[in-house]
Amino acid sequence: MTNQQHPFDDATKLRKEGNIFIGKTSPKYANMVGPFGGIIAATLLRAALEHPKREGEPVALTVNYAAPISDGEFKIHVSPARTNRSTQHWTIELTQEEKTVITATALFAKRQKTWTSTEAQMPEVASADLIPSLPAEGLPDWVQNYDMRIVQGFPDLTNPDAEEAKTSITKQWVKDQPERPLDFLSLASMSDSFFPRVFIRRNKMVPAGTVSLTIYFHADAECLASYEAKPILGKAWANRFYDGFFDQSAEMWSEDGKLLATTNQIVYYRDE
Amino acid sequence: MTNQQHPFDDATKLRKEGNIFIGKTSPKYANMVGPFGGIIAATLLRAALEHPKREGEPVALTVNYAAPISDGEFKIHVSPARTNRSTQHWTIELTQEEKTVITATALFAKRQKTWTSTEAQMPEVASADLIPSLPAEGLPDWVQNYDMRIVQGFPDLTNPDAEEAKTSITKQWVKDQPERPLDFLSLASMSDSFFPRVFIRRNKMVPAGTVSLTIYFHADAECLASYEAKPILGKAWANRFYDGFFDQSAEMWSEDGKLLATTNQIVYYRDE
Repeated sequence: MTNQQHPFDDATKLRKEGNIFIGKTSPKYANMVGPFGGIIAATLLRAALEHPKREGEPVALTVNYAAPISDGEFKIHVSPARTNRSTQHWTIELTQEEKTVITATALFAKRQKTWTSTEAQMPEVASADLIPSLPAEGLPDWVQNYDMRIVQGFPDLTNPDAEEAKTSITKQWVKDQPERPLDFLSLASMSDSFFPRVFIRRNKMVPAGTVSLTIYFHADAECLASYEAKPILGKAWANRFYDGFFDQSAEMWSEDGKLLATTNQIVYYRDE
Repeated sequence: MTNQQHPFDDATKLRKEGNIFIGKTSPKYANMVGPFGGIIAATLLRAALEHPKREGEPVALTVNYAAPISDGEFKIHVSPARTNRSTQHWTIELTQEEKTVITATALFAKRQKTWTSTEAQMPEVASADLIPSLPAEGLPDWVQNYDMRIVQGFPDLTNPDAEEAKTSITKQWVKDQPERPLDFLSLASMSDSFFPRVFIRRNKMVPAGTVSLTIYFHADAECLASYEAKPILGKAWANRFYDGFFDQSAEMWSEDGKLLATTNQIVYYRDE
């Protein structure tokens, strides 16, 4: 299977028309309302990556989900706001019918080899092949594009009387399904593949959705490519749930213990 | 002392000219190169807060420091990208001589009372009055506007042979000096008041600067105001230092254990 044929590459595909890129929602990556946020983050990042003026590789991406995306085509306006010797800042906007639906910013950089060190600790968990895959039945369509193996932290949705969990921590293995070599786009998308922390903590589904997502990449393209289609270990947790918004922090680890990305998001929620 | 007279309020002061706000760098908040990033974050947030179309209170702010700000005047272009029933998304740009220097996005919301819970643990530290204030001599000018009391994690810059520290964790009490009632603006600025993690970890100064900063607010205006000028406990750490960029995560706590904000940033660094 070539990348061109993979559903992920289809879903993030763009065509350039003058100064804008045109994309289209993919039913395969549909969420409860509109598309899966991860695929949108990846699509916006792809617009910057494919821009003829792009220099360097992604270091940071912030995506603000300002309104639901309707099924169909969308326009991406992407421009280099400032290009320096080693860094480049991008502003990105996704519109439908001339209205802003998503705003985003991205930082690209030409990295230099430096002293390097990881302080975060990789969670000690069983390897992916010892954990059963999450059945995708009854879950939003986008979940079928991932092989997710949840080590800890999935809500007990079968029991309406389930008690509140002590924490919202989730540890999960995730990879594309069908398999696809890891790159910045798939890592960006996987960074949003955790179910809302409020589901895990409260052991029930309530209205919730990501409003703003930030990803910091701690790897270069060559490093990501070296992991091919190996699973990524994600750990996610919430710090505070407060009057309609909670935050989620997450780490994305390679099987052999490299911290490939850290990511944070703020998520709206209601009581029920 | 009224707010109008406080150096912080002077430094973030804006005048509206048509659709743009004009601000001016303040020597009191100067950093090594250009102004302190925290005062700029606060100034951009103030532009959105003072915009006649603003609805709700700040929930998230991302600021990208695309280039150094020169001393003198700057323009802030701030516009509501999308206004919904309970949320409002802003795009913000700071320019000098028609060039983009900073890009930013902000999320405002009208919060509703909901189930609320804090999962992060407040660090157990001695109260602020038991910790000596950091002498500001030899440090950048902006530090003089803060009473900083460092509980843990300050580099030993007096000893060129100091060994590398085991972690980059810092715990510090911080408040405005002179005192000023806490609000979103001062909390945003304090969120950037940690010295670069690479200084702490490597026990030496190397070139380093914040490139992108994200703040999530977990409090409303009334809650912040209730803390008056009490000190805030900040805890900051790095997850990974990798080839020129490291991330910093931080928590901002009230004295009585409320998590008022969580904040993340990506910072460039060189070996020396």
